[in-house]
Amino acid sequence: MAPATAVTAQDCADALEALRERAPLVQCLTNIVVAQWTANVLLAVGAAPAMVDNPEEAGPFAAVAGGVLVNLGTPYADTVAAMELAVASAGTAGTPWVLDPVAAGALAWRTGIARGLLAQRPTVVRGNASEVMALTGGAGGKGVESVDTPEAALGAARELAAQHGTVVAVSGPLDHLTDGERVVRISNGHPLLTRVTGVGCALGAMMAGFAAVVDDPLLAAVAATATLTVCGDRAAFDVPGPGSFAVVLLDKLASLTPADLAANVRLS
Amino acid sequence: MAPATAVTAQDCADALEALRERAPLVQCLTNIVVAQWTANVLLAVGAAPAMVDNPEEAGPFAAVAGGVLVNLGTPYADTVAAMELAVASAGTAGTPWVLDPVAAGALAWRTGIARGLLAQRPTVVRGNASEVMALTGGAGGKGVESVDTPEAALGAARELAAQHGTVVAVSGPLDHLTDGERVVRISNGHPLLTRVTGVGCALGAMMAGFAAVVDDPLLAAVAATATLTVCGDRAAFDVPGPGSFAVVLLDKLASLTPADLAANVRLS
Amino acid sequence: MAPATAVTAQDCADALEALRERAPLVQCLTNIVVAQWTANVLLAVGAAPAMVDNPEEAGPFAAVAGGVLVNLGTPYADTVAAMELAVASAGTAGTPWVLDPVAAGALAWRTGIARGLLAQRPTVVRGNASEVMALTGGAGGKGVESVDTPEAALGAARELAAQHGTVVAVSGPLDHLTDGERVVRISNGHPLLTRVTGVGCALGAMMAGFAAVVDDPLLAAVAATATLTVCGDRAAFDVPGPGSFAVVLLDKLASLTPADLAANVRLS
Repeated sequence: MAPATAVTAQDCADALEALRERAPLVQCLTNIVVAQWTANVLLAVGAAPAMVDNPEEAGPFAAVAGGVLVNLGTPYADTVAAMELAVASAGTAGTPWVLDPVAAGALAWRTGIARGLLAQRPTVVRGNASEVMALTGGAGGKGVESVDTPEAALGAARELAAQHGTVVAVSGPLDHLTDGERVVRISNGHPLLTRVTGVGCALGAMMAGFAAVVDDPLLAAVAATATLTVCGDRAAFDVPGPGSFAVVLLDKLASLTPADLAANVRLS
Repeated sequence: MAPATAVTAQDCADALEALRERAPLVQCLTNIVVAQWTANVLLAVGAAPAMVDNPEEAGPFAAVAGGVLVNLGTPYADTVAAMELAVASAGTAGTPWVLDPVAAGALAWRTGIARGLLAQRPTVVRGNASEVMALTGGAGGKGVESVDTPEAALGAARELAAQHGTVVAVSGPLDHLTDGERVVRISNGHPLLTRVTGVGCALGAMMAGFAAVVDDPLLAAVAATATLTVCGDRAAFDVPGPGSFAVVLLDKLASLTPADLAANVRLS
Repeated sequence: MAPATAVTAQDCADALEALRERAPLVQCLTNIVVAQWTANVLLAVGAAPAMVDNPEEAGPFAAVAGGVLVNLGTPYADTVAAMELAVASAGTAGTPWVLDPVAAGALAWRTGIARGLLAQRPTVVRGNASEVMALTGGAGGKGVESVDTPEAALGAARELAAQHGTVVAVSGPLDHLTDGERVVRISNGHPLLTRVTGVGCALGAMMAGFAAVVDDPLLAAVAATATLTVCGDRAAFDVPGPGSFAVVLLDKLASLTPADLAANVRLS
């Protein structure tokens, strides 16, 4: 008998419904490039963003937030200190948190920070193929762009997930997500998603939001990816370019219904 | 005999005309989430934004700016030092300044900072109901969201205004603004204004711009709120979601005429 | 016999084609207001942005980036340290870099920083007329706005270019660019470009991208300005205001072909 499907389309729809009902508070320690976009994505989809990223407040706030995002896009000494405090507090309080190791592998300082945070057992690690591979010792990408494919990173992702008890989400043309045992692939999405800065960063924040409302971290990561990429498909239809695409993507995130999501996501 | 209306629709229109004519320089010490949006709102409405928020320059610049915004959205040690220098300089130079105590009450460190800044006598304090109540000892909201209604906060707002010689603007579905004696309510606006990050933050910046061109701080705060919420009404008409709404809101801020404003604002 | 035209429309088209083919990695040390917008402009036009602006990573990254932007919009102690490291590394590695001395002249601290960076021989200096004049001892503008015309700044620009071996690009209604000997004027562009924050900042980043793919720094600066202003002309056609304009500008940057650019740029 075949194993049960890891996550179903209906699971994703139920997760989206839970997100809308509970509007979880998502604390984001993220970069200066995408902070506004990330907040707008969270507001559009139905979560409540709070960009609390200073060392004085990050720890206490992580204890009351529904989920926490730690994104290494533009790390500074102060924000890294805040990240470490937030992660420690989230661990103690049981708040789910997501690590997005932006440009790990390409830059030495942040690669060390990412590995240190990884040892604190994030609920989910989200990155592109090069970033994920860098966390297991790979060479890393070119700046923030991936030079590896998600397929190639799946082995590293499984290893990482099993070793650290985390879910690993490898974003790319075909998204691969795994908790070390189960593997889910999502084949929605559009190339325009790579022409807007911060789409992956916002996806990490959405995963923190979903992790606040569902128990299974793999489902949280899959539901977030499904929601974003299904909306990406819809937004790409008939827009003239990346400026319009980003605007319409927010509109679609706000209007997507759970039933729409279940009907359109392509899981395997 | 009834007291004179505190502020009239025509006063708001005249204030908008003055803003357009004088294009005041508005110094913003604000957060990393909304800095771009705030600058674009100020440019759209006709003011000149300058985000001078480092400790070396914030003080001298506040002496020459038309108005100053101090927003506690993402405070850091350095930017808080810059805020204190800007506020001291604004006080000496007579530059009007606006305090936006984002998430006061919800977070201890910034609540202390907000109270310290409040003691420096801001021209206007703008916040949601929970933030305003927190400044008089209330419990505060959930992250950056208000859990109290503007109506409930009116007592706290009056008390705060009278005690500190400031105008207090409580933003919400029905905006309440007071200088401790006069109370103005504005019933324009649309729920989509809460689905875009930084609308309230940008409103604080607009108040600093209006305070640069009119003598009555209550009028400045009312005219800014009227301008933003009337444009919110217009932008919400026929847009599919929050992404489009934010874009069209900027268009409407640029095209709103003083006569349009006078004809559409609902004051009481 | 007339001197050869410094830069031709076809040169600009070839530069755009090279940019699209090579997708250069552009390191941006820029301000918190425009970081997102700058990244989106670079992605739209075909470059790969990387906002690496901390002191730990800025130096090593400048050695591998295709081009570097140093923008003084919101300088902090840490980011200024990162800028100095990036510039030193770029100099050693031969990476072209662009200095955008935002508000030089209007603010003393950053004017000193700008002059120090200028002594490190940037490949291109881009600013408005007041900023350029301030670098040669002029009085500077009002905040980030220019109070001088590009025509008035041309003398200062030539002097600066000759003295420091750099290209100087003076942005304005009529753009003036010079390497000290050759002068190029570009008469494309639209007033709406001044109603969106960060257009000039993004132009500096585009210059760093073009400088990564062509040998002549004057051509890089001209091609970037031509690309942006031709797209500005197109975006301004039939949009209702500055919000829509910014969105459509990104669309146009993505869809502009080299042939379109050659056919529409107005050089003299």
